This record gives sequence, C-alpha cells and structure tokens, in this order.
Amino acid sequence: MSLDQIKIVLVETSHPGNIGSAARAMKTMGLSQLYLVAPKVLPNEESIALSAGSADVVENAKIVASFDEAVADCSLIIGTSARSRHLTTTAISPRYCGEKTIEHLANGKVAIVFGRERIGLTNEELLKCHYHLNIPANPEYSSLNLAMAVQLVSYEIRMAYLQAQSSPTTPQHKSTMPEGVVAEELEYFFQKTEKIYQEIGFIQNSAVMKKLRRLYLRTAIQRNELNILQGMLTAVERLLKKDRNQQ
Amino acid sequence: MSLDQIKIVLVETSHPGNIGSAARAMKTMGLSQLYLVAPKVLPNEESIALSAGSADVVENAKIVASFDEAVADCSLIIGTSARSRHLTTTAISPRYCGEKTIEHLANGKVAIVFGRERIGLTNEELLKCHYHLNIPANPEYSSLNLAMAVQLVSYEIRMAYLQAQSSPTTPQHKSTMPEGVVAEELEYFFQKTEKIYQEIGFIQNSAVMKKLRRLYLRTAIQRNELNILQGMLTAVERLLKKDRNQQ
Repeated sequence: MSLDQIKIVLVETSHPGNIGSAARAMKTMGLSQLYLVAPKVLPNEESIALSAGSADVVENAKIVASFDEAVADCSLIIGTSARSRHLTTTAISPRYCGEKTIEHLANGKVAIVFGRERIGLTNEELLKCHYHLNIPANPEYSSLNLAMAVQLVSYEIRMAYLQAQSSPTTPQHKSTMPEGVVAEELEYFFQKTEKIYQEIGFIQNSAVMKKLRRLYLRTAIQRNELNILQGMLTAVERLLKKDRNQQ
Repeated sequence: MSLDQIKIVLVETSHPGNIGSAARAMKTMGLSQLYLVAPKVLPNEESIALSAGSADVVENAKIVASFDEAVADCSLIIGTSARSRHLTTTAISPRYCGEKTIEHLANGKVAIVFGRERIGLTNEELLKCHYHLNIPANPEYSSLNLAMAVQLVSYEIRMAYLQAQSSPTTPQHKSTMPEGVVAEELEYFFQKTEKIYQEIGFIQNSAVMKKLRRLYLRTAIQRNELNILQGMLTAVERLLKKDRNQQ
C-alpha cells in the first residue's frame, strides 16, 4: 500500500499560488502525485514560493490537457462538489473519502479531483466520478480555499492510512506508556494523606478522602507523579512533627 | 451547545495574512471567536483580503496581551505542539480534540491555542494546556501552514459538532458534569502550591511544578476537588506560619 498510488488532480486552476499551497498541503500528509488539468497559468515562482518546502511536488506535477487524461489509469475517481440534490446517492464525506481511497489501493490507483476555484467541476466531469466528495462546511459560509480543501482531504487520507497501518498489529504506544502504579502503592499514599491531614485538622470526615481517591484514580497517576505527591506529604509530615515537638 | 463557546487563539502571529486565512478557515467550519495574543503586526488590509468573506471574524477578533488573558475564562485549554516525548500522556489527535471540545461545551469555554509560525508555543505555555494537539503529519515534511492547521482543527470540531447534533441522545451528562474550573483558578492554585512547597523546602527546581501541572491539567479537575486541594494547601500554610513564628 503506497500513497504514491493516489493522485490529486486540480482542474483549470486560475491562481498559480493555489498550486503551490495545494502541493504543500499534500506533502504534509505524505502525498506526492499532483496532476494539473489545463491550468490557466502554469506553475511559476509564486507556486514555488507558496509550496514552502514542497517545490519537488510542484516540479514533478504532471500537466495534462484534459480530465480524462488525468484519471485514465485510475480505477476509483472521487470528484469534489458542492452539496447537490442531484448527487445524493454518491455523496461522501471527507472521512469516508479517506477510508475508501486507502481501501482501494490494493486494487489500483485513485484520483481525487478538485474543480476550478470559482465554478468547480462541470456536470460532465462529475458524471465521470464514482463518488462526489462534499465537505460539510458552514452552510452560511462554505467558501473553502482550494488548497484548504486539498488539505482536509489529504488529512483524511493520511488518517485512514495510519489507521490501516496500525490496525493489524495490536500493541500501540506500548513502549511509550509509563510503568503503572499498582493499587498497593496508591493505597499507601491515600492512607498517609488521610493520617497527616487528619492530624493537621483539615480532614474531619470521610467525604474528603472519597473525593481525593476518585480524583487520583481517574487520572491514572504515574510513578514519578506519585513520587512527587509522596515527597510533598513527607515534607508536610516533617513540619508537623517539628510543630508537635515544639508544643 | 454553541460553537461560540470555542475560542481559537493565535499567539504572536508574524504575518497578518495568516490571521485572515485563519479567520476564513474558522468561518467555513462555523467558528467565530478569534483571539490574538500580541500579534507582531495588527490585523490589516492583507488580513481582510485573505479572509475572503470572513472580515467579520477578523474585525471582531479580540487582541490581548498575554496567553493567560486569552484563556482566563476557559476550562479546557488545548495547545498545538509538535510531537514531543515530553508530552506523550497528554498528546491528542485533531479528531480527539474535536470530540473533546464538543463534549466540554456543556461545562464551559474551550480555547484551542496555536503557537507562533516558526517556534510554536513556549514550554511555559504548553504547561498551561490540558491537552497537546499533535497533527499526525508526514514525518519527513510536517510544515503545515498556520491557517491550514486551524482549518484541520476547525473541521474536526465541526465534524464532532454535527455528530453530536445528529446523535439521538442529546443530553450530554449535563446534569452530572460539574462546572469546569477556569484557567485563572488553576493558575492561582499552582502558584500557591509552588510558593508553599518552596518555603517548606520541598520544591527546589522547576521540574516538580511542571509534573504537577501536567498531572492536574490532564485530570480535568473539578471545582469541589480543587476546593479540597486548596483547603489542604491552606492548612499546610497555616502550619508553616506557626512554625515560622516559633523560630
């Protein structure tokens, strides 16, 4: 499974800056295959500037004459579109688009096609897509910048990719998880807390300890944290003993 | 449940254009509350131009002097950060961030804090966050533009919001969840803890307070719990004063 099987296709972009920003968005999510269908302005200095460290994606972009040419070797084509009552049965969310894309990589290449900045994809182009991606934006203001849309879709592809990578093998985070505190240690801490704060005169009934127990149990406290709390308790205990001796 | 309870906080942005692009990203996802902490350049014509139809978000942005001021009335603070081995226990994904944010709205305000374009948030700022948002970008090129990061996070918030709207069980623990503790109260507790345990002689360097901050922020401490911890502190403070007087 390789993310290089995924093409991001931009159709007739007007602004070369958008090409660069889209390239950057792609690369941050591990995508590299950019196809430009008849861009109004060819990738230029502005594209490179906005691509930040992703000039390679811009420079390797394939410039083609038509939608058909861009998607010719793809077996799954997903086109972006505004919500439309004509496309309800094939409308999918960015999340589903990500999952579907990754799922499909075993079978062949995938194209995600973004339309023109102002008017999107034509009906004819939309008809050539298996699915129609709809970003569930604010209905009162749904004007996502082209590169922002590329960012969201690339992000969902990466999420699905990481999910697929990690799902067969179970142990996650195993090495990074700190050693757990066992019940016995925690119990010792609670009893010492209760004893010392009773002596100080703060704890006068069982309600307080119940709440403290709940707090620290919920936290899944770690050993180094418990050590600090124990150290604080011991410091208070020492102060208390000193006080008792002076009386 | 209102998205107006969510603040997007940008700390010391260098480029006014990024403020506009971030405003646009927010508005496409239904967010409106933008806070700017000491921007290097105040929102200007470039911000408005890049905000496209979102000038209202830029114009209504609150400009504040400090991180603390921006988050003072928030009871959940999520800061963005690069992946770090120091923050493994509090690291969350954009998706989880969206869910957590929406879940929290019944209890109080949420701040999502984005750092400076080049250097992000300082360690001190990160310590004041309950969670640390990590966008799982391409490890070989993880340089997301600031507004792109705002777009992704705003998108995940909207997804979680739509999910919550459509799920049949509407009342979200509202009655059982206590009122959230706001940042200001927690900060007072931390500073008092540091002061008292320094006087006792237990705290001798900053590492201890860092760990304690992380512990209590992670826990999403509740008001009655914080009251108990404050009460314990006050009891220790009294003992300490008595000790000082006897010397």
